[in-house]
Amino acid sequence: MPDRRRTVFFVSDGTGITVEMLGHSLLTQFDGIEFDQMTVPFIDSVAKAEACVARINEAAVSGNGRPVVFTTLVNAEIRETVRKAEAFVLDFFESFLDPLEAEFGAKSTHTIGRSHSARDAKGYTHRIDAINFALAHDDGASSRDLDKADVILVGVSRSGKTPTSLYLSLQFGIRAANCPLIPEDFDRMSLPTALQAHRRKLYGLSIAPERLREIRNERRPNSQYADLENCRYEVQQAEKLMSREGIRWANSTTKSIEEIATTIMQEFKLERRAY
Amino acid sequence: MPDRRRTVFFVSDGTGITVEMLGHSLLTQFDGIEFDQMTVPFIDSVAKAEACVARINEAAVSGNGRPVVFTTLVNAEIRETVRKAEAFVLDFFESFLDPLEAEFGAKSTHTIGRSHSARDAKGYTHRIDAINFALAHDDGASSRDLDKADVILVGVSRSGKTPTSLYLSLQFGIRAANCPLIPEDFDRMSLPTALQAHRRKLYGLSIAPERLREIRNERRPNSQYADLENCRYEVQQAEKLMSREGIRWANSTTKSIEEIATTIMQEFKLERRAY
Repeated sequence: MPDRRRTVFFVSDGTGITVEMLGHSLLTQFDGIEFDQMTVPFIDSVAKAEACVARINEAAVSGNGRPVVFTTLVNAEIRETVRKAEAFVLDFFESFLDPLEAEFGAKSTHTIGRSHSARDAKGYTHRIDAINFALAHDDGASSRDLDKADVILVGVSRSGKTPTSLYLSLQFGIRAANCPLIPEDFDRMSLPTALQAHRRKLYGLSIAPERLREIRNERRPNSQYADLENCRYEVQQAEKLMSREGIRWANSTTKSIEEIATTIMQEFKLERRAY
Repeated sequence: MPDRRRTVFFVSDGTGITVEMLGHSLLTQFDGIEFDQMTVPFIDSVAKAEACVARINEAAVSGNGRPVVFTTLVNAEIRETVRKAEAFVLDFFESFLDPLEAEFGAKSTHTIGRSHSARDAKGYTHRIDAINFALAHDDGASSRDLDKADVILVGVSRSGKTPTSLYLSLQFGIRAANCPLIPEDFDRMSLPTALQAHRRKLYGLSIAPERLREIRNERRPNSQYADLENCRYEVQQAEKLMSREGIRWANSTTKSIEEIATTIMQEFKLERRAY
């Protein structure tokens, strides 16, 4: 019989965010097994690796079967230390650095902590600028500098514009403004005046009325704002307006923040400004 | 002689964010080679894979040497299609799904698009709640509901509190408030009143005065606010206050947003509420 439960460790000499994402996406391919997932970041010395191995070995006798350990460890000695754990260990770097060295005809530097952008001052500045831009232009707060936006998200209140704008800024360094479509726009059946000069930068978000009701109801229980009929009306009118104006849109009911953000990058042929 | 420049493709049946991060962290291990990096997301059919191969093959004759292709493709047919490109192809899934199947005694489902949290309604709600919380409690905007915060960041203006709070909310579903330490706190040498009941949740950010000057100077050029002596004074006083109050802190001068966020998760033993 296959296992029902496993303890999983993501071990990294950096933040562990990359190994966590990759390991997690592999684990989602296995149904019917529950995974207790633990991230162990900043394992950048043999001593820390030994402490980590002790934790893994404790888990090994806890009854969940052999622990699974995903690692991204640049240093061979640290990697060998972790490999001695009573566990099934998969290292993402080991499998790929050697073939890449052969392909490039160059040795890798085996330097710990190169993944994120603190050392990439330009990328960092792009991210911070983009975050400030998203905050200053959240929910139609300002129409100043809209010409500096890479993209302007539109959609009814609570359709997912804010998380998408913030994700674009934090993850990609992309400047995203967002502006709600509200009943008075539908009465006029035209875009808010401030947006009309920026039509080519507009991207819409829509959402299933039932889902919108749930989200709005958590915010303002039993309000007209959250009423299903009202949600239906607003979504229908917003889609009608976007169609008339030739604005493409994605549906946030079934798409994750990451998927919407990536779709926007693709539609507008935007390139990351930060890693 | 080793290559000087290579074109790199990150190909995924999902957003490509995972493969991009992992591929990018491998490439940072090679000095002296410039990489032209391109992400090709949503390759979820053989037809799209063929179009992608055509793009790769175009790059192959562009003079940058053989393209390098990193993929995370769940479907074997799509993977085989991409593998036919005139390129050096490394697939992250192929190398790991087989050993994991053997280890678990279970077949993987080979289902495309499972990585992100749209299908994980609870995780999505956590993220959205956390984002709303971070926005409502940005820059000391509100001291309501601070008891619901997982962590409250403190530090001088422009020390990196906002990006860190937003990252914690978006990436991990963690509720982070942030509150500036300002000259009048230093005059009294005590924490803002609203924070005194939440001492155990406080985490500090500090920054090198020279870096702080740069950041503030972009915002308000040649102001007293951005003056180096003033920056030195504020940073010194903030560190003195945090020491006195027993508040741990990280330095955002040399740490990325990801590194600070991960450090905080670790210090407070917080667990991700979303993937």
